[in-house]
Amino acid sequence: MSKILSDAGMDLLFRDARTHNAWQDKEVSDVLLEAIYDLAKLGPTSANCSPMRVVYVRSPEAKARLKPTLDAGNVEKTMAAPVTAIIGHDQEFFQHLPRLFPHAADARSWFAGKPAHIETTAFRNGSLQGAYFILSARALGLDCGPMSGFDNEAVDREFFPSGTVRSNFLCNLGHGDPKGLFPRSPRFDFDDVCTIL
Amino acid sequence: MSKILSDAGMDLLFRDARTHNAWQDKEVSDVLLEAIYDLAKLGPTSANCSPMRVVYVRSPEAKARLKPTLDAGNVEKTMAAPVTAIIGHDQEFFQHLPRLFPHAADARSWFAGKPAHIETTAFRNGSLQGAYFILSARALGLDCGPMSGFDNEAVDREFFPSGTVRSNFLCNLGHGDPKGLFPRSPRFDFDDVCTIL
Repeated sequence: MSKILSDAGMDLLFRDARTHNAWQDKEVSDVLLEAIYDLAKLGPTSANCSPMRVVYVRSPEAKARLKPTLDAGNVEKTMAAPVTAIIGHDQEFFQHLPRLFPHAADARSWFAGKPAHIETTAFRNGSLQGAYFILSARALGLDCGPMSGFDNEAVDREFFPSGTVRSNFLCNLGHGDPKGLFPRSPRFDFDDVCTIL
Repeated sequence: MSKILSDAGMDLLFRDARTHNAWQDKEVSDVLLEAIYDLAKLGPTSANCSPMRVVYVRSPEAKARLKPTLDAGNVEKTMAAPVTAIIGHDQEFFQHLPRLFPHAADARSWFAGKPAHIETTAFRNGSLQGAYFILSARALGLDCGPMSGFDNEAVDREFFPSGTVRSNFLCNLGHGDPKGLFPRSPRFDFDDVCTIL
């Protein structure tokens, strides 16, 4: 017999989970930040390419470096969040395929010298992993505040000095204050965006 | 007190879940296909832009149209899968923002006439929604077989005739046959790809 997720689990990950804008003054431990990744890393990526790279911005010094890269509307909540995760993807991900996809000896050659294929693969799979990251954080009892409103190139320069990683989105993490929630916005109905052929 | 996901839930969505390559001969109902979307739609996207579009390929006729677009290694398992979902994203997503993000009267203007911003936003958020889709299917007791190996332009012509939707990835759905599983490939350790600042 098939198992399905409990109602409580569906509530925690999807139905009751909301994008938070205000934060309780509660720290998030290193162990919890590690546990988010340890769950999220198990989600599927093509050829197990795993391009996501994460910088957790937590100290006041690191927050101060992030602040000038943020859109005005994202400054206050991001400075108040216990942690802000920078989700990026490494354009050199394919160099690691001999380790990550060991049964295909030539996997690196599927990408080497093909910049458009590299970029698409890194962005697609880094974004999939970013979503696994959000749901893993919720699974571990944290609230998330993901956002796209920041200067990507400035973040890349400041936090990914290797030059091979592109920032994708930011995700505030902590225990949200429900007083800062907006009403949930409407979603498309099934028939608006799905077809069965 | 914070709630966290049960061990059984973490197993179902992440730890025991695997990418399946062989399928049991069990149908997947319309109700279940609708339920996947109804859960996945709740995951966050920037400005609630919700660009994902889904075509469920289930009938023999629709499978026959999909077959010539597949990479050789993906044909047999995809033809055998009870359903194959085509996950795409609509480049015209921003036309719907007055409905989806009603409190920002000018949201459409954030994108109109900005093709690079449109494309990046559609691809990022469509991929996030694709990951919510995979985990929602697992939450409902289905196994997934996501894959990138197909001719995107041919799929777009065949299944998204409006011309505004780009295919992102395919996801076989059903009840997997564990005999078709490969051993799980290794993942990066936390310290390989994550930093706490």
